[in-house]
Amino acid sequence: MVVCDGLADRPLREGGLTPLERAETPQMDRIAEEGICGLMDPIAPGITPGSDTAHLSLLGYDPFQTYSGRGPFEAAGAGLPLRKGDVAFRVNFATVDENLLLRDRRAGRLRDGRELEELLRGIRVEGAEILFRSTSSHRAVLVLRGKGLSHQVSSNDPHTTGVRVEGVRPLSAAGRKTARILNEFLRKAREVLEEAPLNRRRREQGLPPANYLLVRGGGTVPSLEPLESRFSLRGACVAAAALVRGVCRLAGMEVAEVPTSTTGVDTDLEAEVAEVERRLEESDLVLYSIKGFDEVSHDGDARRKIEFIERFDGYLPRLREMADFLVLTADHSTPVEVREHTADPVPVVIAGPGVRTDEVRRFGERSCARGGLGRIRGTELLPILVDLMGRSRKFGA
Amino acid sequence: MVVCDGLADRPLREGGLTPLERAETPQMDRIAEEGICGLMDPIAPGITPGSDTAHLSLLGYDPFQTYSGRGPFEAAGAGLPLRKGDVAFRVNFATVDENLLLRDRRAGRLRDGRELEELLRGIRVEGAEILFRSTSSHRAVLVLRGKGLSHQVSSNDPHTTGVRVEGVRPLSAAGRKTARILNEFLRKAREVLEEAPLNRRRREQGLPPANYLLVRGGGTVPSLEPLESRFSLRGACVAAAALVRGVCRLAGMEVAEVPTSTTGVDTDLEAEVAEVERRLEESDLVLYSIKGFDEVSHDGDARRKIEFIERFDGYLPRLREMADFLVLTADHSTPVEVREHTADPVPVVIAGPGVRTDEVRRFGERSCARGGLGRIRGTELLPILVDLMGRSRKFGA
Repeated sequence: MVVCDGLADRPLREGGLTPLERAETPQMDRIAEEGICGLMDPIAPGITPGSDTAHLSLLGYDPFQTYSGRGPFEAAGAGLPLRKGDVAFRVNFATVDENLLLRDRRAGRLRDGRELEELLRGIRVEGAEILFRSTSSHRAVLVLRGKGLSHQVSSNDPHTTGVRVEGVRPLSAAGRKTARILNEFLRKAREVLEEAPLNRRRREQGLPPANYLLVRGGGTVPSLEPLESRFSLRGACVAAAALVRGVCRLAGMEVAEVPTSTTGVDTDLEAEVAEVERRLEESDLVLYSIKGFDEVSHDGDARRKIEFIERFDGYLPRLREMADFLVLTADHSTPVEVREHTADPVPVVIAGPGVRTDEVRRFGERSCARGGLGRIRGTELLPILVDLMGRSRKFGA
Repeated sequence: MVVCDGLADRPLREGGLTPLERAETPQMDRIAEEGICGLMDPIAPGITPGSDTAHLSLLGYDPFQTYSGRGPFEAAGAGLPLRKGDVAFRVNFATVDENLLLRDRRAGRLRDGRELEELLRGIRVEGAEILFRSTSSHRAVLVLRGKGLSHQVSSNDPHTTGVRVEGVRPLSAAGRKTARILNEFLRKAREVLEEAPLNRRRREQGLPPANYLLVRGGGTVPSLEPLESRFSLRGACVAAAALVRGVCRLAGMEVAEVPTSTTGVDTDLEAEVAEVERRLEESDLVLYSIKGFDEVSHDGDARRKIEFIERFDGYLPRLREMADFLVLTADHSTPVEVREHTADPVPVVIAGPGVRTDEVRRFGERSCARGGLGRIRGTELLPILVDLMGRSRKFGA
């Protein structure tokens, strides 16, 4: 299952074609011809997906049931061993002054927080176990584990500098205990960070100290029935994006490491495709998710989007040969003229033995609307694929 | 409503057409031309239906809400008068040795269990009323009626001979009472069966005695709002398959008897069609379900499937003339190259006054994908038909 993050688009003002329609994609078109095509609402019509909620859908999980915030998926992507009911947050190392006025949301884009992680992991708070991990540069994840916790607490991130950072607040009665624990942790973390040798060195160098933690994206870790028990599929994922990796890990999939893989158009497609092939040897399903399309779309760069589509197109014959079935789709639309995700449905094609081919000859947002799949939803894609693979279980007699 | 069981298929490796596409079906095609066509997921995309769950859907009942196992539909099909909350099972008369090792799952394909049924109906067990009926050859149905019963019990069918038959186990706390009652019944049934004159005669003839009962397919009888109160429709059904007859009976429909009707391609289409016509005199809706398509599909016999399609095609003009509206569809796909049900959607056409005709000129899995109905679900079909018939009730003002 090849998921081109943010591939789908809208017609460009100039020329009236989408980047995918404008790009030369003989290989994608060949797969459209060979397979059954359609349009897919990653979540539901008019619902603008995130990459996390969209990938949850594509793996068959209803995000309305399983998603309460991105924290759990960030934390799982960072490799933290999570349990159902844990409450997880994204964290920024930030800089505050002595009056708690926010000076820098990213602590001068701190390069590496691992030294601080060590110190913070020593903090104990009554009522919850605390897991903390520095991920990349100024980013980290925080997990609270214990009875009666909830993600129903506010963020403490004012999003603008010069403003005083307040404590988190409960957003409902259920969040009171969590807010108290989190505020105590944040207070103790500040004490630890102020004294940290790294921050002493940063002050000496005239750099903003990483002396405060901003938390946001709180969510409760859901219980996702693993793909293996749900569909009898051993799954693996090849993806650079931490959120996608987290979704896959929580779905019980193996998550591959490709050191030269990035979230940009500079990623090492060659190495990723080779890893997909390796993973297929011991997996029934490999999700290959490529982030570069989305990145250039957020930049509003149609030319680079088209170039990346054309470059990626060249890898499709190899991907097609690796397995009986190939699904090619996107997790959501990111129109370059909008620079944000939109709810427009995405094109999808399934190629493989027994599919009811249709008359679609081009892989594109509008051509696929005439395909034999009609308009489906993200959560329906994997069950349809599993059925074509001959692995579905009959409901009834 | 004409439901061709297992009619829908996938493109055959040879020739790339489905059996329905390959068959000469001038009459079905005429109806496709006259009506509005579409694709239908009998339950939902990617969900592989049974004939029971699919027919529930086609009658407007959500199988996820109403279906817990096939037992109730078998029992209703056998004519047992059921009540909401009864727990029903399929039963095999089987042969065990003195150590309860299974010798024959079908007791040497016992010809007729009615003599044994008489004896078994005398058994009393504390805590539940017991209904038992022999259906055909080695098959029977068992119903438990009482307070606090549940279908949450295991089967006692080991599915292979030479294995000891164990008692049923509760699958949850809710199933404990039922397991206890069922095990007591099974123990008493064994005593009764060992002494039965029929089994004495069988032993003398060197035949395996029908001295044990294997139960499976347990389900709780749902409360289905009858078609008559739900849609103000008097309904009748013409169907040979016991499960379909059971679904219709639980939906409050009249179930016709056509003595020469079978579940194979040797069925008496002439007599069935005549019965449909008779039933239409006093019914608003007649469901006519034909099993032969499914049977030859499970056999993997494309040639006989095509022949049966072509033979059935000849009856459509008469069926079309009988009523204002004709729906022609399938309950699920059974591709001959898979030999099992699959989740592929089925073609559907509705012909009758006022329908928004489309450009579909052939009744087939792929041609109907371009029809005016788009892609609908099984539970939506009857409400759409009822509305076209001018019998829907407005929701709102």
